[in-house]
Amino acid sequence: MNEYPSILLEQAVNQMSSLPGVGRRTALRLVLHLLRQSDESVEAFAGAFTRLKKEVVYCRECHNISDTEVCPICGSMHRDHATICVVESVQDVMSIENTGQYTGVYHVLGGIISPMEGIGPKDIEIDSLIERVAKGGVDEIILALPTTMEGDTTNFYIYRRIQNAGIDVKISQIARGVAVGNQLEYTDEITLGRSIVNRTEFKG
Amino acid sequence: MNEYPSILLEQAVNQMSSLPGVGRRTALRLVLHLLRQSDESVEAFAGAFTRLKKEVVYCRECHNISDTEVCPICGSMHRDHATICVVESVQDVMSIENTGQYTGVYHVLGGIISPMEGIGPKDIEIDSLIERVAKGGVDEIILALPTTMEGDTTNFYIYRRIQNAGIDVKISQIARGVAVGNQLEYTDEITLGRSIVNRTEFKG
Repeated sequence: MNEYPSILLEQAVNQMSSLPGVGRRTALRLVLHLLRQSDESVEAFAGAFTRLKKEVVYCRECHNISDTEVCPICGSMHRDHATICVVESVQDVMSIENTGQYTGVYHVLGGIISPMEGIGPKDIEIDSLIERVAKGGVDEIILALPTTMEGDTTNFYIYRRIQNAGIDVKISQIARGVAVGNQLEYTDEITLGRSIVNRTEFKG
Repeated sequence: MNEYPSILLEQAVNQMSSLPGVGRRTALRLVLHLLRQSDESVEAFAGAFTRLKKEVVYCRECHNISDTEVCPICGSMHRDHATICVVESVQDVMSIENTGQYTGVYHVLGGIISPMEGIGPKDIEIDSLIERVAKGGVDEIILALPTTMEGDTTNFYIYRRIQNAGIDVKISQIARGVAVGNQLEYTDEITLGRSIVNRTEFKG
């Protein structure tokens, strides 16, 4: 006999365990949980993902997920449209918005350059960023990509593209250093080393 | 601005985080993972759950999930139909099958009696169990419910129902004691105490 008592059940478990970080045992538990819900609940569950996939819109300015052709941030008169923060993903926009410290607009790359995963500059929204900056009206680009080899590569690629296009715009990157509340002894050596090299003036 | 850049995205995250043990941050990660898949993959993902919910069949004998009116175990000539193992859930059937130690058939209650959660005897497959045993041809019922207050209550309820119906059948329960490979010092007191009271003859 098959491990699963039903092929339909097995297929549902296969789909659930295709999600990252969901093992087969957890998947079975989640599927059996769904099976105990009403028909309408299961329809609503499944429908939410197909509807999102079918009807999702990406903002034509910043390429963030949106319900409208221009997202609320890009459409806002209260945001500083001369400052563009370049991020990898939708989550990063949400994280920065949650800080309440940023009043500019965004550009969501939808990934970062990763030769290991076969992601090149053409696979992410870099051309659209260069076009956007070339149109003028942008004073500063803030690079807010992950502090990884891939992030550094992407930062450098964007920097070179803007230099080569002869666009006059300030390019900055988010500060890296010891996280607020962290003990020095538990901070990794590279971060600590860079935080000394890139020290900032103390304003007492 | 809303926390989520899109209502469709928020709805999908709401649905994903309705699964037990999935928080909103994880749900967002999973939904954005789905969004990166092809249309067909998302259709297949969502379709697996609606199809399971719509087309699932419960075996008319043991009430396990099945693709057919009678499940492969109940339909098998190689199983001992005079021995019925009473379990709480589909997972329990799969766990016992995986041991390869059991050749009888099952009865899946679909839950256990829990006054705290408002689950009474009528909400689970106890009547069908009594009917099944009353029809005759059953020599032994093995109670394999969880070692909890609810499990003990359900065990006792089934025992009384069979006694009251005047059915002559052997009723046993799975052995409880120190798990194989466990150190005595790390075994909880109740388990250790019971394992001494309910000691079995040593066959050297």
